[in-house]
Amino acid sequence: MNSSQTQPSSRLRVLIVGGVAAGASAAARARRLSEGAHITIIERGPDVSFANCGLPYHIGGEIADRSRLALHTPESLAELLNVEVRTRTEAVAIDARGRTLALRNLDTGAEETLSYDKLVLAPGAAPLRPPLPGIDNPAIHTLRSLQDMDRIKAAAASARSVLIVGGGFIGLEMVEQLRHLEKQVTLVETNDQVLPQVDAEIAGPIASTLRTHDVELVLGDAAESFAPGKSPAGDAVVTRLKSGREITADMVILSIGVKPENALASAAGLELGARGAIKVNQWMQTSDPDIYAAGDVVEGADRIFGGAMHLALGGPANRQGRVIADHIFLGPEKAHPYPGHIGTAIVRVFDMAAGVTGWTEKRLRQAGTAFESTIVTDHQHAGYYPGATPLTIKLLWSPADGRLLGAQAFGADGVDKRLDVLATALAGRMSIDELAQLELAYAPPFGSARDVVNTAAFTAQNQRDGLVKIVPKITADRHLIDVRPQAVASIDPLPDSTNIPFSDLRSRLGELDAGKKYAVTCSLGKTSYFAARILMQHGFDVVSVAGGLKMSRPVES
Amino acid sequence: MNSSQTQPSSRLRVLIVGGVAAGASAAARARRLSEGAHITIIERGPDVSFANCGLPYHIGGEIADRSRLALHTPESLAELLNVEVRTRTEAVAIDARGRTLALRNLDTGAEETLSYDKLVLAPGAAPLRPPLPGIDNPAIHTLRSLQDMDRIKAAAASARSVLIVGGGFIGLEMVEQLRHLEKQVTLVETNDQVLPQVDAEIAGPIASTLRTHDVELVLGDAAESFAPGKSPAGDAVVTRLKSGREITADMVILSIGVKPENALASAAGLELGARGAIKVNQWMQTSDPDIYAAGDVVEGADRIFGGAMHLALGGPANRQGRVIADHIFLGPEKAHPYPGHIGTAIVRVFDMAAGVTGWTEKRLRQAGTAFESTIVTDHQHAGYYPGATPLTIKLLWSPADGRLLGAQAFGADGVDKRLDVLATALAGRMSIDELAQLELAYAPPFGSARDVVNTAAFTAQNQRDGLVKIVPKITADRHLIDVRPQAVASIDPLPDSTNIPFSDLRSRLGELDAGKKYAVTCSLGKTSYFAARILMQHGFDVVSVAGGLKMSRPVES
Ligand SMILES: Cc1cc2nc3c(=O)[nH]c(=O)nc-3n(C[C@H](O)[C@H](O)[C@H](O)COP(=O)(O)OP(=O)(O)OC[C@H]3O[C@@H](n4cnc5c(N)ncnc54)[C@H](O)[C@@H]3O)c2cc1C
Ligand SMILES: Cc1cc2nc3c(=O)[nH]c(=O)nc-3n(C[C@H](O)[C@H](O)[C@H](O)COP(=O)(O)OP(=O)(O)OC[C@H]3O[C@@H](n4cnc5c(N)ncnc54)[C@H](O)[C@@H]3O)c2cc1C
Ligand SMILES: CC(C)(COP(=O)(O)OP(=O)(O)OC[C@H]1O[C@@H](n2cnc3c(N)ncnc32)[C@H](O)[C@@H]1OP(=O)(O)O)[C@@H](O)C(=O)NCCC(=O)NCCS
Ligand SMILES: CC(C)(COP(=O)(O)OP(=O)(O)OC[C@H]1O[C@@H](n2cnc3c(N)ncnc32)[C@H](O)[C@@H]1OP(=O)(O)O)[C@@H](O)C(=O)NCCC(=O)NCCS
Repeated sequence: MNSSQTQPSSRLRVLIVGGVAAGASAAARARRLSEGAHITIIERGPDVSFANCGLPYHIGGEIADRSRLALHTPESLAELLNVEVRTRTEAVAIDARGRTLALRNLDTGAEETLSYDKLVLAPGAAPLRPPLPGIDNPAIHTLRSLQDMDRIKAAAASARSVLIVGGGFIGLEMVEQLRHLEKQVTLVETNDQVLPQVDAEIAGPIASTLRTHDVELVLGDAAESFAPGKSPAGDAVVTRLKSGREITADMVILSIGVKPENALASAAGLELGARGAIKVNQWMQTSDPDIYAAGDVVEGADRIFGGAMHLALGGPANRQGRVIADHIFLGPEKAHPYPGHIGTAIVRVFDMAAGVTGWTEKRLRQAGTAFESTIVTDHQHAGYYPGATPLTIKLLWSPADGRLLGAQAFGADGVDKRLDVLATALAGRMSIDELAQLELAYAPPFGSARDVVNTAAFTAQNQRDGLVKIVPKITADRHLIDVRPQAVASIDPLPDSTNIPFSDLRSRLGELDAGKKYAVTCSLGKTSYFAARILMQHGFDVVSVAGGLKMSRPVES
Repeated sequence: MNSSQTQPSSRLRVLIVGGVAAGASAAARARRLSEGAHITIIERGPDVSFANCGLPYHIGGEIADRSRLALHTPESLAELLNVEVRTRTEAVAIDARGRTLALRNLDTGAEETLSYDKLVLAPGAAPLRPPLPGIDNPAIHTLRSLQDMDRIKAAAASARSVLIVGGGFIGLEMVEQLRHLEKQVTLVETNDQVLPQVDAEIAGPIASTLRTHDVELVLGDAAESFAPGKSPAGDAVVTRLKSGREITADMVILSIGVKPENALASAAGLELGARGAIKVNQWMQTSDPDIYAAGDVVEGADRIFGGAMHLALGGPANRQGRVIADHIFLGPEKAHPYPGHIGTAIVRVFDMAAGVTGWTEKRLRQAGTAFESTIVTDHQHAGYYPGATPLTIKLLWSPADGRLLGAQAFGADGVDKRLDVLATALAGRMSIDELAQLELAYAPPFGSARDVVNTAAFTAQNQRDGLVKIVPKITADRHLIDVRPQAVASIDPLPDSTNIPFSDLRSRLGELDAGKKYAVTCSLGKTSYFAARILMQHGFDVVSVAGGLKMSRPVES
């Protein structure tokens, strides 16, 4: 407790640029560690400590009270932390040698220079707004601040149709909230799937959900220019897509990603990463050890493979801010380093949720890394207990040692739980064998004796151990056997297949040809696995289709 | 795949005693691994593969359709797995030398002896029914089988009052379900708290919830004898407690634990553990390597400290059954051992849930193991998003290295998620420092930028690092400072304390006496931590009360 008691004498001058997630967290922890430090928060906007992540939900009306989004006013934050808070003040230049920061008051234009012992850069990231023709139309919005939110909410009040450009996490939240407001919503996404952060098997069901909720999806196309136009509601924007198609909407929301607010850092010569984010070490120190950076502006280390990674999420920003304060005031012996990013994100899309943790198949393929993929669907809790709904989990794992590399999930309930379990497993560098034996909380309302995480890991083990060969889709080179019950297969027949219900399989083996190659399928991939085991043991060359017809023949792509 | 293809020739004779969780799972996996093995399931009861865990919910009517509880009939299981299923057949003796098992048909009395290559014992456990005077009264029930369930459901139909003896997991489920049926419910528990499997801080709020739902709790008392009596509904049972109190109820349900069904194993000379459960190795082999055992009948290894542990839960039973089949048919090279028990359990109690994973404070104290305890309450998801409810987490961790030893949780929502994250962390032998940096899925409907798990770990770090001294309760030897806002403190004053609202603390330090010892408290323990940091840095001897008034002054014990 000695260190703590010596703090009041310390009059370290800490300047923090950015007063929201990373910045306010650094300030708060710094004050708890040192009553004596002189802490100043410099914030360009009028607000500090607000819940960026809540903005879409106020637009949609779910969070009715706007003031809930401001966790603090500048005044209450200053009082709570006994810090100086300067809003509407932009940090304009760092003199790293002289350890000073130049500021400009945005209301008065007055400039000032403050000196620091430690500088913390937490300026976040700005929404991308590419220089496309017509982009300056005031009906084209981006969402980052409370003011952006107010503008969108006001515009939405009179709009009937909205075009969302970009189908990532924030884009999908906006789609959902604007449909809550009963707007006519179109979503344009460059990729051939929604939510490019996940793989196709998870994006497919999200797309179905969106369509069920009357969202028009335009995939594999991009906005190229904007022009003023007219709609039944009045003035509108006509967005011209790469394909030539034109979409008229009363307002446009761009949610195509963010770019780190690196101007200050870049001008000061701090090292930047490939995507323009500030490079930091495990203590969040930039290339200048007296200058720290945290949040959306930094490039962190990827915990899975160790490379560089830019992750713009609230949790990491908050925790990084805390690490900075610890390093400044507790020193490297007592502080605990930021361990790097996993990449865990979730989005609710109407009555469904989807998310990811760690690496996706796409990233693994791009990196040329060896991986195996396992996809299973099961109930989120005991099937016999009311309210059981399907939950799909995709695991990516290393064929070398079974180590989990990433996971994704989709379902109506329990998606967040499975992602959190799998994110924890990634942090613990666990393997599919460890996942198979996780002892998760089970009572009928909450789980199953074998949780879907266990089941997914069992299936991965079976693939790894050669008990079954699971293929991602039905291909023409194998004769297809549909092992669903005859009653199901006759209502919903599968073309180019032979229906041999699983219950008949053992007695009908004689109908099969030892010289042929077979693929078996069913609804979910479980019965086809059982069938494949029988056929393999009788010497047949057989594969089972991953995830069954639910995955290989989804309602839409 | 060679091993798989050679299986049909194998005619290994596998006998399985018990056809429910562990037994049926072993049979199912065995069949998938070997089409050729000769597998026979011997089951004393009329049913196999039923959901024991669902029994209370059919009694209460939540699972309306009884047939949902039978995952298979004996016939459908036999067909699915191509195994022989003998119900109403009791295994009566093992001849381990001769590798035979003697059976008795319970309907005909016919006896028979079957030989085996591998014997799997999965007979489960029987509810304790101590030889108390009057215990044979047919209105005194225990719950294990579908028949027990039917009897209880029938009796409940005409009963108005029910006495539940034993407030563990199953006891609480029965309390809840019988209140759903609007019975008058009294719960007697020997311990001075409900749910003896958790610590007092978690049991306290469960007790409050039970009382809110008009359950009469009789704690620290025990049933000693039963006598026939009369109630307004007709014939009743008068239960006499140790205290002398008599409780008249139309029916009694005993849920005071189970004892392993060890008669067969014990007679065969298999090694048993202290509590009568069968000792097994990591492959679930008993002291006779051709005899395996799994489920409620075995004593497993505790994954936290390595000792022996009896755990009667569905998940472990299912996974152990699978390990047995793997060991028999894949051999020790390809099979993966059962890693031992964590001890993860959850129960819903009306609108609340509570659970535990790993060790409790009670167990740590009994074992004389060094530990630290941290308790925090926070919201289950972003506080600004509608529906935020409090969630309490208790962490037990090692002062030596910060390793997590156990955790408990209580709340209306999200308890299962936090338990599963913490169970995964226990499996990964993670420390509080790793928990502090878990990157969990955050969007406002699902979590917080700092999940309550992160926050609990932050607090544990602060304790470990000497940033704050947290005491479990208010004691008279320190002057108490209540740092809640004056408006709160005046409505709900705290006796023998001085109210110095946190916002005034820095300016009112002059009122404090450097020679005195102080304790600070607030509602949840967060503001008091902030206050303690200020006071410590000004040289005061100060402690913060764990969990605030919510924990140190709960509505009831
Ligand atoms: C609509 C929306 C929804 C989101 N939803 C989620 C979600 O569900 N889950 C999740 O994890 N994350 C979500 N995020 C991301 C999350 O909000 C960010 O990752 C987080 O806020 C980053 O924190 P930060 O401190 O780095 O930046 P910010 O919170 O953006 O704070 C940076 C601040 O610095 C100020 N600033 C910039 N430059 C200067 C300068 N030169 N001088 C002075 N001040 C400056 C800015 O005005 C800004 O207020 C969402 C973001 C948005 C916009
Ligand atoms: C009411 C209730 C609620 C529960 N809730 C939960 C919960 O929410 N979560 C959880 O994880 N666990 C729960 N459990 C515990 C879980 O059901 C058990 O841990 C699990 O069933 C154990 O599996 P087992 O195969 O070892 O034993 P069992 O499932 O009991 O199967 C053993 C079978 O062996 C048969 N048998 C015994 N002796 C012989 C013999 N000599 N010859 C032939 N057959 C024999 C028995 O008739 C029995 O059917 C609950 C249990 C009950 C009773
Ligand atoms: C509001 C804000 C300044 C809060 O910062 P903060 O004080 O560090 O955070 P909290 O109020 O959650 O308090 C956390 C502290 O209280 C402690 N704490 C929390 N609950 C506690 C409890 N029950 N008992 C003891 N300590 C507790 C934590 O350990 C932590 O202290 P530490 O960092 O010294 O260990 C900052 O998080 C912020 O500006 N947030 C809004 C912006 C944002 O995050 N946006 C992106 C996501 S929407
Ligand atoms: C019903 C019972 C016989 C089922 O046993 P089972 O066939 O092993 O279990 P499941 O039906 O869940 O199937 C699991 C198998 O299918 C596989 N599987 C599941 N979903 C799959 C999918 N989508 N794709 C591929 N494989 C899948 C699993 O990997 C596993 O196979 P493996 O063990 O060979 O790896 C047994 O669990 C039982 O009797 N349960 C009821 C009793 C009970 O558990 N009571 C206590 C709790 S209430």
